[in-house]
Amino acid sequence: MKRYERHADAIAQLIHSGALRPGDRVPSVREASRTRGISPSTVFEAYYLLEAQGLIHARPRSGYYVSTHLPATAGQQPPAEPLPSQPAVGSTGVAISDLVFEVLGSARDRDLVPLGSAFPGLELFPFERLARCLSSGMRKLDPWSIVQSLPPGDERLRQQIALRYGLHGTAVDTGELIITNGAMEALNLCLEAVTRPGDIVVVESPTFYAALQALERLNLKAVEVATHPREGIDLAALAEALARHPVKACWLMPSFQNPLGSLMPEEKKRALVALLARHQVPLIEDDVYGELHFAPERPLPAKAFDTEGLVMHCSSFSKCLAPGYRVGWVAAGRFATAVQRLKLMTTLAAATPSQQALSEYLAQGGYDRHLRQLRRSLARQQERALAGIARHFPAGTRVSRPEGGYFLWVELPASVNALTLHRQALAQGISLAPGQIFSADQRFAHCVRINYGHPAQERFEEALATVGRLAGELALG
Amino acid sequence: MKRYERHADAIAQLIHSGALRPGDRVPSVREASRTRGISPSTVFEAYYLLEAQGLIHARPRSGYYVSTHLPATAGQQPPAEPLPSQPAVGSTGVAISDLVFEVLGSARDRDLVPLGSAFPGLELFPFERLARCLSSGMRKLDPWSIVQSLPPGDERLRQQIALRYGLHGTAVDTGELIITNGAMEALNLCLEAVTRPGDIVVVESPTFYAALQALERLNLKAVEVATHPREGIDLAALAEALARHPVKACWLMPSFQNPLGSLMPEEKKRALVALLARHQVPLIEDDVYGELHFAPERPLPAKAFDTEGLVMHCSSFSKCLAPGYRVGWVAAGRFATAVQRLKLMTTLAAATPSQQALSEYLAQGGYDRHLRQLRRSLARQQERALAGIARHFPAGTRVSRPEGGYFLWVELPASVNALTLHRQALAQGISLAPGQIFSADQRFAHCVRINYGHPAQERFEEALATVGRLAGELALG
Repeated sequence: MKRYERHADAIAQLIHSGALRPGDRVPSVREASRTRGISPSTVFEAYYLLEAQGLIHARPRSGYYVSTHLPATAGQQPPAEPLPSQPAVGSTGVAISDLVFEVLGSARDRDLVPLGSAFPGLELFPFERLARCLSSGMRKLDPWSIVQSLPPGDERLRQQIALRYGLHGTAVDTGELIITNGAMEALNLCLEAVTRPGDIVVVESPTFYAALQALERLNLKAVEVATHPREGIDLAALAEALARHPVKACWLMPSFQNPLGSLMPEEKKRALVALLARHQVPLIEDDVYGELHFAPERPLPAKAFDTEGLVMHCSSFSKCLAPGYRVGWVAAGRFATAVQRLKLMTTLAAATPSQQALSEYLAQGGYDRHLRQLRRSLARQQERALAGIARHFPAGTRVSRPEGGYFLWVELPASVNALTLHRQALAQGISLAPGQIFSADQRFAHCVRINYGHPAQERFEEALATVGRLAGELALG
Repeated sequence: MKRYERHADAIAQLIHSGALRPGDRVPSVREASRTRGISPSTVFEAYYLLEAQGLIHARPRSGYYVSTHLPATAGQQPPAEPLPSQPAVGSTGVAISDLVFEVLGSARDRDLVPLGSAFPGLELFPFERLARCLSSGMRKLDPWSIVQSLPPGDERLRQQIALRYGLHGTAVDTGELIITNGAMEALNLCLEAVTRPGDIVVVESPTFYAALQALERLNLKAVEVATHPREGIDLAALAEALARHPVKACWLMPSFQNPLGSLMPEEKKRALVALLARHQVPLIEDDVYGELHFAPERPLPAKAFDTEGLVMHCSSFSKCLAPGYRVGWVAAGRFATAVQRLKLMTTLAAATPSQQALSEYLAQGGYDRHLRQLRRSLARQQERALAGIARHFPAGTRVSRPEGGYFLWVELPASVNALTLHRQALAQGISLAPGQIFSADQRFAHCVRINYGHPAQERFEEALATVGRLAGELALG
């Protein structure tokens, strides 16, 4: 636990114990810094975290106060965290797509409460400003830039993305950046660039179903490696897998993993990169949730520790700024040329209007302000979700507590079949992402991923109560 | 030759012989219809063709007149057409990508005369109106449509595309239409949907290099089938290939083939579809140039004759309306679900702004007016190109005379190496597409594809003269 987290915890204890009551003023930053002997910035980070958790709020020019409506978990014991995963040893073929399409296809109805959705609520994004950026970007367009933005993509946009990497402590060369149709394309191209049919690829257990689908599409074999619900992939297990199998690539999400929400600590990311470098195994790093952190600082990607060009860092604007614009990218290191060629061969280029709009938006400024609002919204929503689960889900339920993103991973009592729960929930107008789609051998049959990223959803608490009741009934058998 | 073509030819003869001189009035439609015993619409189609060829022009409310500036070929013998191709028998692995990338990469400089480009001149497209459609389309956007336009894509756009098919005599169901990132993605997804590594696929000889690259990427084998420079693939040769090999798909361009410009007559398309149906072999129909016809009517695609859902018809707006927007589609027949799933797995969705812009543009009307201008421009450019080649290229040169599109296929004397010519031309500031990239076995080493679709290019004639001179020197050895 970091120093600011310890301080935040101490304040949270005071609130939970009633020593600080709703409406009370929290010690000022200067005061706390002096009395605790910690730096003002550490105090500030702690307060930022507490604010994100909904425990305190700032009043302009007056300081921080304990929230009058405390999140529901404040007074009660939150559910336990899930246990580390224990995947099967050995590699497996993948045949998950039919199930994934069945589940996703059933969840696209507008009237459903989208607990199973992969997207956050569209009310969270600045579509009007983006539309204005689209207009002004296209007015300024030199048509030649259409040719110019063939892969690797629009020059100005790539420079802006490289700059953001730099500001967050990761050195990325504009020359290794390729703009793609969302992160999904980036990830798939990277996988295709470093594998041949039959090859073995490491994924997390559980893992994002799209990774499994990509393996299935390219006739690759999966080795699923154990994870810890808070700290991500188990490096000892990974080392063992690397020793045992001729692994050709790892497809991992070190920050806010989908579905776990786990965040590998920086030192662990550094060790991961070093381990893979020893084996000369490329890392396909899926970092689409990296900007959605609740702590003050953006977590460094594994890419930040890469000195050999082995890490292909994939991300996009789809989850944090501009859903539907389909602008993603990869910083592909030594594989940049291979990826760029695959891009040229399969989809040629990313759409010019979308690239222009994003480039214009970034040039105008205000992205970080938008991100701060978005993160605060999501952090508050997480508290709502945890409270609802604590109140309504059956005894024995375990829940992750991610420090970012908009997913909770919920481990239900072993007797609950998540696919059955998913179908029953659908009948009640609620979608869910059943655990079965997150593993090649469908071992997470008693787990569900819950999306809490829809603040405008009025039926959210009610839906959690319904799912909790259905799960309780299934748990009884 | 069709009736209107015969009538156009008769008038052209009168012009070439001097019987009708520049400035003379051409017989009115009514007059010609009466004296020749053909319908007014046939006369009109003939005049439309002559106008596209630059031989006559209309004066409002006055009729048609012989052009005062006749295209340069009018008075001289045009070069002969290329000979039918004679590919090797048997299937081959494909390893062409490095060469293709070398050639394409060298031709992306803005200052080059783009005879080697794959794109028409950007001055031909209504970018300002498209930008306005983008703005108004996005203002009306219901963010939910972002979710709604996950594959298969925006509903309104798909309806408009289906409607255009219907207007041109091809029955396409909205349900089989999938919006893609340009036709390139559509073609690649179709190929992936119906093949497994090691399978055999039929392509034309010569063929579009991107088809060869797709085969190489998916580890497929090519069977190259003979073509006729005017009428496209040789059906007897195709029948033989189908009998000899376990062909899993054909990737063909029945209309304005790239690079030949050949156009299969309708009856031949019907026979092609019937032949493939007998063998139950899917046809991936690349029809990106179908709208760029110089004759009055859009040629029917092979898809029009498909009753079994075996034809996957791929096209886009990139070559005829909106380069850079990356909006293409496929009418995938019985393979629609498979293609849609591959799309979801690899790039998720096409960009919403681009889809909105195109849908808005089509809804507002005016697309056909734009297309008529574009076709007229390209037809005039073809005359310029043919004239320049007739004047400057060495004896023994053969040139295609496509009825649409913006490419000429030029067969140089056998001693000319097109790659050498390409490199020498580059040194003179001119790009070329050497014949070597259009076949797996690089058999078209003495051919080049010339792009004439850049009317604003001032150095066009000069570039043709330079290439002709270089080719002449290489021909002498």
